[in-house]
Amino acid sequence: MQPLIGILGGMGPLAAVDFTRKILDETITAREQEHVPVLLWNVPQIPDRQVALSGIGESPLPAMLQGIAVLNAAGATRIAIPCNTAHYWFNELAAASAAPLFHIVDATLALIGDNPGTIGILATRGAFQAGIYQERLAALNLTCVINTEQELDQLFMPGCYAIKNGQLDRGGDLLQQAAEQLMVRGADTLLLACTEVGLGLEHVRSDLLPRAIDTNRALAKTCVQYWRSHPAHPQP
Amino acid sequence: MQPLIGILGGMGPLAAVDFTRKILDETITAREQEHVPVLLWNVPQIPDRQVALSGIGESPLPAMLQGIAVLNAAGATRIAIPCNTAHYWFNELAAASAAPLFHIVDATLALIGDNPGTIGILATRGAFQAGIYQERLAALNLTCVINTEQELDQLFMPGCYAIKNGQLDRGGDLLQQAAEQLMVRGADTLLLACTEVGLGLEHVRSDLLPRAIDTNRALAKTCVQYWRSHPAHPQP
Repeated sequence: MQPLIGILGGMGPLAAVDFTRKILDETITAREQEHVPVLLWNVPQIPDRQVALSGIGESPLPAMLQGIAVLNAAGATRIAIPCNTAHYWFNELAAASAAPLFHIVDATLALIGDNPGTIGILATRGAFQAGIYQERLAALNLTCVINTEQELDQLFMPGCYAIKNGQLDRGGDLLQQAAEQLMVRGADTLLLACTEVGLGLEHVRSDLLPRAIDTNRALAKTCVQYWRSHPAHPQP
Repeated sequence: MQPLIGILGGMGPLAAVDFTRKILDETITAREQEHVPVLLWNVPQIPDRQVALSGIGESPLPAMLQGIAVLNAAGATRIAIPCNTAHYWFNELAAASAAPLFHIVDATLALIGDNPGTIGILATRGAFQAGIYQERLAALNLTCVINTEQELDQLFMPGCYAIKNGQLDRGGDLLQQAAEQLMVRGADTLLLACTEVGLGLEHVRSDLLPRAIDTNRALAKTCVQYWRSHPAHPQP
């Protein structure tokens, strides 16, 4: 079976396009034909994940399962989900998929070195409620720090929404402040566990980027490794 | 049937991602759920179109037909092809597809005003061999000018390959020179009928951009219009 990376996108659609672009960026090749074959299901008519996790909205799971079914029927051999919050439903999605799913936390942990020190996690309230990073890091005996409720309200969440609305200066400043609070609290390594964070910190040329791991980029690297190690990959 | 834009990508994969991004850019909305639902088949293991058109390489048609089949099976209601040269095979692809195909030249002509004057076409040698623009413009009694063989060899083609290889300064300069030759020859409106051209001219902040129509952006606008006019589009 020819390898094909299925991408369950739409959450949001721009994050999924950014992820697809990162797969290309991570594939250093001069020949078009050596790039990773992907099928991107980018259907944003999925109920809001943040709202659902706060207990007041429709579940996004049926719409996500529809995407998983399309990708499997089209021959996907692995599936990636470029949305941290969506990983709250990972087990249900994996159970419904013939193609194995890559987990964004596995991809990220693979990039954390042996001595990452204290990990600062920059993520949405919904991603924290899903608990996908905290539990896995604790299992590895790694210490992590996160923003307080007040910092989420005043810095992180308005920073993310500013980026979504194209206000990059304002959003970048707010996200930089949220990141600095984690440094004050002892973070040595930062996980950018939300697409907007990387965009914002890059825009303000943050001095913290050398200590940061972008989770979407980590997932892209995992996809490229899978393709490179597959016998069907054209020899350079 | 729910609308779904199928995208026959891979030619090249970066152009297809750029096109998918342009669909998002052209959809002015604050709500994620109002964005166009798309399925991007981005499988770059398609034989080279330029080589095939020069008569010495394998046909890309079987691989493209495989993509058309995947998109139809997944429920695409319209299909877009973000590659000008690939439109050489448009009729064969359309005949094999239950979902109607948008034609990139139709999308582009829709953006040409009533009095475009002389049209300068910036395109690859393969796209000129395919003749997709010249014939349609002639049918509308529009005059067009194109680069000479020497300009294609010395300016346009090396400019495109420089952009593909990340040398934006050099590529932008060469493409600007190719565009200026068309202006000298009387062009009033420029068609950027190859993805690299827009990237290159934007990089060097070309003074010719206000007179230019990007064909990938024109195709993206057509997709957004289709979605907006469909009853399934969520009301803002």
